[in-house]
Amino acid sequence: MRLKLGLATAVALTLAPVAQADEGMWMPSQLPSIAAQLKAAGYQGNPADLADLTKPPLSAVVKVGGATGAFVSNEGLVLTNHHVAFGVIQYNSKPERDLIQNGYVAADRSQELPANPDFRLRVTTGFDKVTDKVLAGAKGKTGRAYFDAVDAASKALVSECERDVGYRCSVVNMFYGRDFYLVKQLELRDVRLVFAPPRAIGNYGDEVDNFVWPRHSGDFTILRAYVGPDGKPADYSKDNKPYTPPAHLQIASEGVSEGDYVMLAGYPGITYRHRMAAEFADQIQWRLPKSVEVMKQLQGVIEDSGKADKQAAIRYASQLQSLKNGIKRFSGELEGLKRSDAVSIRRKDETAMMAWLDKQPSAKTLKPQIASASKLLADANATRDRDLLFALMQSQTQLMRSAITLQRLGAERAKPDAVRETGFQQRDEDLIAGMLKQVQRRFDPAVEKRLLTALLTRYQQLPDAQRVPEFDAAFGRTPAELAKTLDGVYGATKLGDEAQRLHWLKASQAELAQSDDALLALAAKLQPALTRLDEQRKGREGDLLRLRPAYMEALIAYREQQGRAVYPDANSTLRVSYGKVTPLKARDAVSYAPLTSTEGIVEKNTGEEPFDAPKPLLDAIAKGDYDGYRDAKSGVMPVNFLSNLDTTGGNSGSPVMNAKGELVGLNFDSNWEAVSASWMFDPRYKRAIHVDMRYMRWLMDKVYPAPHLLKELGVPAK
Amino acid sequence: MRLKLGLATAVALTLAPVAQADEGMWMPSQLPSIAAQLKAAGYQGNPADLADLTKPPLSAVVKVGGATGAFVSNEGLVLTNHHVAFGVIQYNSKPERDLIQNGYVAADRSQELPANPDFRLRVTTGFDKVTDKVLAGAKGKTGRAYFDAVDAASKALVSECERDVGYRCSVVNMFYGRDFYLVKQLELRDVRLVFAPPRAIGNYGDEVDNFVWPRHSGDFTILRAYVGPDGKPADYSKDNKPYTPPAHLQIASEGVSEGDYVMLAGYPGITYRHRMAAEFADQIQWRLPKSVEVMKQLQGVIEDSGKADKQAAIRYASQLQSLKNGIKRFSGELEGLKRSDAVSIRRKDETAMMAWLDKQPSAKTLKPQIASASKLLADANATRDRDLLFALMQSQTQLMRSAITLQRLGAERAKPDAVRETGFQQRDEDLIAGMLKQVQRRFDPAVEKRLLTALLTRYQQLPDAQRVPEFDAAFGRTPAELAKTLDGVYGATKLGDEAQRLHWLKASQAELAQSDDALLALAAKLQPALTRLDEQRKGREGDLLRLRPAYMEALIAYREQQGRAVYPDANSTLRVSYGKVTPLKARDAVSYAPLTSTEGIVEKNTGEEPFDAPKPLLDAIAKGDYDGYRDAKSGVMPVNFLSNLDTTGGNSGSPVMNAKGELVGLNFDSNWEAVSASWMFDPRYKRAIHVDMRYMRWLMDKVYPAPHLLKELGVPAK
Repeated sequence: MRLKLGLATAVALTLAPVAQADEGMWMPSQLPSIAAQLKAAGYQGNPADLADLTKPPLSAVVKVGGATGAFVSNEGLVLTNHHVAFGVIQYNSKPERDLIQNGYVAADRSQELPANPDFRLRVTTGFDKVTDKVLAGAKGKTGRAYFDAVDAASKALVSECERDVGYRCSVVNMFYGRDFYLVKQLELRDVRLVFAPPRAIGNYGDEVDNFVWPRHSGDFTILRAYVGPDGKPADYSKDNKPYTPPAHLQIASEGVSEGDYVMLAGYPGITYRHRMAAEFADQIQWRLPKSVEVMKQLQGVIEDSGKADKQAAIRYASQLQSLKNGIKRFSGELEGLKRSDAVSIRRKDETAMMAWLDKQPSAKTLKPQIASASKLLADANATRDRDLLFALMQSQTQLMRSAITLQRLGAERAKPDAVRETGFQQRDEDLIAGMLKQVQRRFDPAVEKRLLTALLTRYQQLPDAQRVPEFDAAFGRTPAELAKTLDGVYGATKLGDEAQRLHWLKASQAELAQSDDALLALAAKLQPALTRLDEQRKGREGDLLRLRPAYMEALIAYREQQGRAVYPDANSTLRVSYGKVTPLKARDAVSYAPLTSTEGIVEKNTGEEPFDAPKPLLDAIAKGDYDGYRDAKSGVMPVNFLSNLDTTGGNSGSPVMNAKGELVGLNFDSNWEAVSASWMFDPRYKRAIHVDMRYMRWLMDKVYPAPHLLKELGVPAK
Repeated sequence: MRLKLGLATAVALTLAPVAQADEGMWMPSQLPSIAAQLKAAGYQGNPADLADLTKPPLSAVVKVGGATGAFVSNEGLVLTNHHVAFGVIQYNSKPERDLIQNGYVAADRSQELPANPDFRLRVTTGFDKVTDKVLAGAKGKTGRAYFDAVDAASKALVSECERDVGYRCSVVNMFYGRDFYLVKQLELRDVRLVFAPPRAIGNYGDEVDNFVWPRHSGDFTILRAYVGPDGKPADYSKDNKPYTPPAHLQIASEGVSEGDYVMLAGYPGITYRHRMAAEFADQIQWRLPKSVEVMKQLQGVIEDSGKADKQAAIRYASQLQSLKNGIKRFSGELEGLKRSDAVSIRRKDETAMMAWLDKQPSAKTLKPQIASASKLLADANATRDRDLLFALMQSQTQLMRSAITLQRLGAERAKPDAVRETGFQQRDEDLIAGMLKQVQRRFDPAVEKRLLTALLTRYQQLPDAQRVPEFDAAFGRTPAELAKTLDGVYGATKLGDEAQRLHWLKASQAELAQSDDALLALAAKLQPALTRLDEQRKGREGDLLRLRPAYMEALIAYREQQGRAVYPDANSTLRVSYGKVTPLKARDAVSYAPLTSTEGIVEKNTGEEPFDAPKPLLDAIAKGDYDGYRDAKSGVMPVNFLSNLDTTGGNSGSPVMNAKGELVGLNFDSNWEAVSASWMFDPRYKRAIHVDMRYMRWLMDKVYPAPHLLKELGVPAK
């Protein structure tokens, strides 16, 4: 009944403007259900052909590390971003052959250079719903037990799936625990570098232009996947042969212009669009501003310390940079969410949904679950100040973190490996050792004490309900007690010595618990509290996994009667978004056209990094030999274009296709105004930035000629 | 004959597009000769009415310090920029009445606050050609003698003119010495503050938004001029009465939109548009890049020194800031001139002019003079490296400059005051004493030595032809000799002591020449060379004043046969420019609309200076009570607008009028891309930024109500 109503409404609405036009990271299986919208937007293919991500054309889209790429020839050529393949380029660079600086054109297959051995391409070959299997053992459980049951079932499914050699499997959950899928991916291990532009093209503008539109970057690289003589995934070998992909995309002969339909497929990482209104409010009214406030205080501490002590300035340079980046990003996200009025929009929407739900039969089962989820979130909020401070106490210190980690590891090591906490298993010990080793280069006792003083003074000022007895006992209740404790502990501890830290890495739980090192002894006192809080958090996460699906059920049903489909929040699985080439009115009186040209490269060029376009490129621009590559409408030579496609981190390298499904662009960034899109898609500001395929083709034709590759790509040199 | 041809061509061309459309800072007397162009551009008045700057309506335009303003009521109200009247606002601010922060609305005339006593408004009442009188005594002379004759004749004319009490007079030269005018200005000394917006409106965005479009500043202030009971200029007195100006401008009831005709009158300071091609090349290929190079080196020296020595960092903070500003401005000018391809455009134009001149009868007299001027410029260029370094040696040091100044003053003081060099007369001694006193706060011997080492090392590396014997003798020929000299001199000199410097200020030439102070002794050795070079420079300037008019004659005649009139380069006299409201395509894919709105104020607002719009403004924007003030086309509440009017420094506060001559805007800035316009007007980038009168009226109606003033301005509150 519900489904019928939904479809009817959807069809009825195709001629009317859709409220959330162009928003959506759709699972391919959802596309047939929004076929009418796709058609109305301008898609000329059959939406049903896009339904299965394991079949052509979507099977041409591959996972490249945490990002995306696409097969573009029948013999395994893969197109992805320069920044995604940067490790491969770096791996093949030597002082006498600097591929980062100079780029690379493999003259023939024998010149194609093997990637770093840990580089992987993943081709999705299976995507099966396994919700029943995953939840079978979880039914009736709550909290941590629910979580553990889901986890165990998922691990079993993965383990069984990976018996098929050459495949990687994972269980992903959609709609926050409502649906579970088993993803099976062929893992290609022999990948080679075929074509890369010089850094000053592939990363033109670097950090200065990061998140910036207008952009002028040739952020692409071409790789080729190889398999063993038997056609199966294999490590690099001379005898390997190019992989024949299940599908490949064809580069369009023409480009796109403002208003043209475009679509994109890729692996977006994470979004929070369907979080509850209370979570939006928490994020915008508390988490982002409070994090920025505390991080700015820590930034101040480090900067002040660095002024007086150059050595300290150097040791904390990287931490300072990371704080600054975090502050910038959080501030941008906050600014965007406020500009979009996200709190009140989400609140209003949820209130309307709950009012609607009241009148539905499903209210009886869904409402109590939603109420429970709300209560869990409210409970978590009651101690959010403390939890933020404790998290920073560990992430922003070196010695304190080492001591806490050592104590926790000691405790976990007393258990069988299989039941040790994730992150503290045998397989994690190398990582922990590495962390303990790099302390030296990043630590200064005076600075760490000042950072802890800042954080723990805030802690001391929290109301009783947020404080924990172990911390109060360890650090005292007054600034004077805190100072005395820190002075005492940091004056006495020997953990500043690397050998000492590595010694304790091997120590038993008992030895650690009785350690006479002042800092380890302090950490031992804190340990019960930290473990208890960790357990609480994990229990809450398990319950949210159990309860959130009710909220999603209500939301999906509510949207359906509005005539709108709901896509699941991003989770690094293959999604499709559609929209159009779109300009951006970023601010009062400021308009950005959706297409940049080679003229802009010259305008930005200073001759100095990061605006140091290579001479061959500047010469070619001066020559202006653009025939066959110019934008038909404006007559300029295109470089990048802008669309309103729905993307997030992970969509780097996603192929952008025209109405016929032909490749017209390569996604590589989004605009600064869209930083908040992980929470809310605001059609006024959300844009994605793409390399125009005409620019890539022109570079490969006129500037760094690779006629053999253009031929293989089906777009021969002019 | 030439004139006839010119007029005919001009008329013939009025229907065709003019190559240099909208360029031009026209003398009012020129406007009738370009009447057809003015009409074609959209001016609805009679251009003949604009011919005399001492008659209405141009007599409504006044000089306010180094900038511009306009009478806007029959009872002496004057409209100018907030930044132009800032001294008046500051003068009237006290801790308990902070007019800078809060702004000011005089409730009635008794509340109008007297300006600082040295604040002046000047109304031009005479503008007479005096070329014959000025040049009478110069005929047949050359070099310094020519200059001195012009100077003496000018001083005599000024002196005679200023016998009329209450007037200030000056002789200005047009077309680089071709024409001379005697300007007579009524000087109003009792000026009062009537209305000022708070700083956060009048200077919204401050340095961050300086030279920036889109802009959101209410950069205006209203003053009132008073005169004595007899109607004549008088110092402030309670008994004074409002001045009745010769004319005042009427605020338009409507605003302007993109493409609308606008014109502006004001006092632009200085431009170099009609300099010779060789001077363009020198500026772009040598002077700007070389100055930036050396200034960056000095910046590095100061920054390095400051890192090691906080006291030095503080003492040199202002010099560092000024170096940075200079570097930024020069770099911007260079960037703009390169973008406009100014060298080759000016060269091509001049080559064509000279080819045309070859065929004219006037070639016989003009060409030799132009050739002589060219030779003078080439001669000057031969030692330009040295001259730049010597200039910086004096402007960028404290003690060295003091010593050189003291020696020069001593030498000049030996002469009768009337023949002492300008800058070293009796009237200048207070200024010199002030300079000597402020050395203390800005001087550190180690930094000054490092600055001099940087400059003089460059000097030592110059070829023989650029070096001078006195400097070689004083500083040696090798880095080691230089270091030894500077160490010796700065180790021994007592000039670091203020009392010492002031003691030598009173010393005779003989005492100074025989001073045993190491630095004064060094300066005594340099003195003959510096005086000699100064004489050479002044001789060259005299000759250029004599010879440049030939170049201008040729240029004017050449332009005339092209159908184009020539305006003289700006020289702080009243000029008119006309054009239209124009958007800006600043860079590839970036377009700026020519009108900003109050929405942009909210967008930019951070709550922190300089983006801390006052609460009454934010409240009024939130309320949106814009009736009667909205832009008719876009529906927004306008704040600032952009035009292609030809302006430069000094045009601040210039009234911007519509096609009917009604006041629609107040000029206050230009865009960054236009920094190079002092040399070349590039219609693609040259824009001027104005306060929209609708914003001013709305502020005075709805936000800081001043209904009595709006009534006096003829635009009553809605």
